[in-house]
Amino acid sequence: MNEYSSKLLELAVSELSRLPGIGKKTALRLALYILKEEEIFAENLSAAILKMRKQIVFCKKCHNISDSELCEICGNHKRDENILCVVEDTRDVLAIENTSQYNGLYHVLGGIINPIEGIGPNDLNIRQLIERNHHEDINEIILALPATVEGDTTSFYIYKLLKTFDLNVTTIARGVAVGDELEYTDEITLGRSILNRLPFENSMNRN
Amino acid sequence: MNEYSSKLLELAVSELSRLPGIGKKTALRLALYILKEEEIFAENLSAAILKMRKQIVFCKKCHNISDSELCEICGNHKRDENILCVVEDTRDVLAIENTSQYNGLYHVLGGIINPIEGIGPNDLNIRQLIERNHHEDINEIILALPATVEGDTTSFYIYKLLKTFDLNVTTIARGVAVGDELEYTDEITLGRSILNRLPFENSMNRN
Repeated sequence: MNEYSSKLLELAVSELSRLPGIGKKTALRLALYILKEEEIFAENLSAAILKMRKQIVFCKKCHNISDSELCEICGNHKRDENILCVVEDTRDVLAIENTSQYNGLYHVLGGIINPIEGIGPNDLNIRQLIERNHHEDINEIILALPATVEGDTTSFYIYKLLKTFDLNVTTIARGVAVGDELEYTDEITLGRSILNRLPFENSMNRN
Repeated sequence: MNEYSSKLLELAVSELSRLPGIGKKTALRLALYILKEEEIFAENLSAAILKMRKQIVFCKKCHNISDSELCEICGNHKRDENILCVVEDTRDVLAIENTSQYNGLYHVLGGIINPIEGIGPNDLNIRQLIERNHHEDINEIILALPATVEGDTTSFYIYKLLKTFDLNVTTIARGVAVGDELEYTDEITLGRSILNRLPFENSMNRN
């Protein structure tokens, strides 16, 4: 007999378990939950998934996920158009927006250079970043990429390309996280935070 | 501005995060994954969810999830029709089927009695179980409910209803799990396994 007593259930479980981090058991739990809920729940869920996939576009300027050709950040004239923050993907834009500490524009790379996964510079929106420097009036580019080997590699690659332009290239500060005990901070982070120490007055007056 | 830079993304995240065990962050990860994949992936996923919810029925005999009026187990004449195994839901049918140790039929309650969650006997397929005893030739009913207070309550409730019928009511064995060390087994389980000890010959010749 069929393992799942229903081919329809089996198919839904198999589709759900293609999602990252969802195994067969979790997929079955989700499917049974959907079965228990009213029909409108399944209708809304599947419509939202399909509509998102079919209608979402990437902003033609910053390449962030957007509902229209130009995203809300790029279209907002209150934002500082002279400063760009380069990030890996949409989640990083969200994370930085949530800090309320940044009022410039973004540039979403769509990933970082990762030779093991076969992702090279041409798979990312790096060429488009250079283009923007030709057409927009940018004074500063902040590299806000992950604090990993791949992130650093990508930052360095972009930095080399940008050297010819007349602008400041900066990177977000690496150091001891707020609330961390020094004794539990890894030594590379702690070491960097000593090397990159800053005048005490500068560290106050933030937030 | 909109927290998610796209209303379509926001809607998909909000629908996905209604699923059990899926928080906002996981939902965002799933949504971004769906966006990265080919369009056919989103199409298949949403079709499978919708089709399952709209077309699945419950077997008119055992109330298990089924594609047709009578499920594959109830419709299989090779199964022993004189024995019924009472379980909480579909997942338990799967679990017991996977042991290959049972060849009878099932009766799916659709839950267990849980006053805290407001689930009483009338919310479950208990009346239908009694009906089956009137119309089918059943010799034994195995109660295979969870080893919890609610499971035991439900078992006892069903047992009292079945006492007037001429049949054996049994329950699955509770005891030390295969592979478990005695010293790490909780004392109630260990105590029960001593009380319910059985002749050594009986414990062999299984499987």
